[in-house]
Amino acid sequence: MDKMIEHGLLYDFYGELLTDHQKELYEKAVFEDLSLGEIASDEGISRQGVHDLLKRCNKALEDYEEKLGLVKRFYKIKEKVGKIHKLADEGSPSDDTLNMIRKLADEIVEEL
Amino acid sequence: MDKMIEHGLLYDFYGELLTDHQKELYEKAVFEDLSLGEIASDEGISRQGVHDLLKRCNKALEDYEEKLGLVKRFYKIKEKVGKIHKLADEGSPSDDTLNMIRKLADEIVEEL
Repeated sequence: MDKMIEHGLLYDFYGELLTDHQKELYEKAVFEDLSLGEIASDEGISRQGVHDLLKRCNKALEDYEEKLGLVKRFYKIKEKVGKIHKLADEGSPSDDTLNMIRKLADEIVEEL
Repeated sequence: MDKMIEHGLLYDFYGELLTDHQKELYEKAVFEDLSLGEIASDEGISRQGVHDLLKRCNKALEDYEEKLGLVKRFYKIKEKVGKIHKLADEGSPSDDTLNMIRKLADEIVEEL
């Protein structure tokens, strides 16, 4: 996956675990797409300082994913929800179809 | 909710974010139900030391829930899955029922 999107997703799930300062810099870099130089001059720190801080943020976010796996879980549940949709789209679903819907719903809880 | 169950649940969701030593003590106290004195003698630290460490663990777990809200989310999704089940239990579901199932499935993704 594109590194930028991947980190954006990690931030969506774990951003609250970063410090306010980390969040501020991270949002400038990833969401406002400012350059290291621009952030450095905004924050009154060196380009290298910004670079190191962002690298530490990415590492922290990746570590959280390694431990909690919320992004991975998100994709798995999204897939199951997609399947429920598809089954519910069958005009008059058979008992088998309804059973599959129930099973998928249970699997969602098991993922949590 | 019972404090013990609540902390057990918090541990299920955030335990991986504790250190190995914290996890060890926590499991002895909450899951093996050992007394402070027993853990203290196992670990070769004081009763007060065990007490403080467990208190810090609980605080850390509560802080994670405050920030990420995974336990709260778990209950919300479980409720929606229960509703999907109930709707799928209707023998030959109407279009409205199928729409509700689709809507609930979408709401689950939105909770994530």
